Amino acid sequence: MTRLTKEICEACRADAPRVSEDELAALIKQIPDWAVEVRDGIMQLERIYSFPDFAQALAFTDRVGALAEAEGHHPKLVTEWGSVVVTWWSHKIRGLHRNDFIMAAKTDAVANQESP
Amino acid sequence: MTRLTKEICEACRADAPRVSEDELAALIKQIPDWAVEVRDGIMQLERIYSFPDFAQALAFTDRVGALAEAEGHHPKLVTEWGSVVVTWWSHKIRGLHRNDFIMAAKTDAVANQESP
Repeated sequence: MTRLTKEICEACRADAPRVSEDELAALIKQIPDWAVEVRDGIMQLERIYSFPDFAQALAFTDRVGALAEAEGHHPKLVTEWGSVVVTWWSHKIRGLHRNDFIMAAKTDAVANQESP
Repeated sequence: MTRLTKEICEACRADAPRVSEDELAALIKQIPDWAVEVRDGIMQLERIYSFPDFAQALAFTDRVGALAEAEGHHPKLVTEWGSVVVTWWSHKIRGLHRNDFIMAAKTDAVANQESP
């Protein structure tokens, strides 16, 4: 568990700042299993979680979905037999906000069955 | 509802035949809202379902997941705020089997709240 899991998402406005390069470098160290991907010019955080079957993958999708609803910040969840790909970014600012790192850390906590 | 929803998936072996062009042309007429996509040389059936929020998208993912478990054939489900993209193909034959058209029709039935 990282310190990020202790934070809560703040409301993200369209004029909120994206994380700076220095902030990104510091924050990504706290979620070392996540990759930064750029799609259509939008920076995103992504991690693939593996499972032994479809049912356990779908159960994880549900747990991450419940977390998303609780925090009011929603990911892309790609559920397949044996895996879930979780992608976080902030639609309003078309990039990464501190919220996304908080949610990535909390997703790891959900995967580890810790209380996020 | 189409006749396909009355069928059940048969076990798909690696040497099972893919649907022929003629079969595909006939089957796709029964699921007119689905598109045929080709990714990495693999033909797939895909449809985007829209929802007014994340919770309803996730609830649909769950219902399609339950259908998949019941039939023993599993899709890719991309869940986001406001939409779920459902993709069916048969991994073992790297293409489309009649099963995929059955599951696409049953997914439509789930979306329409009909009993598949």
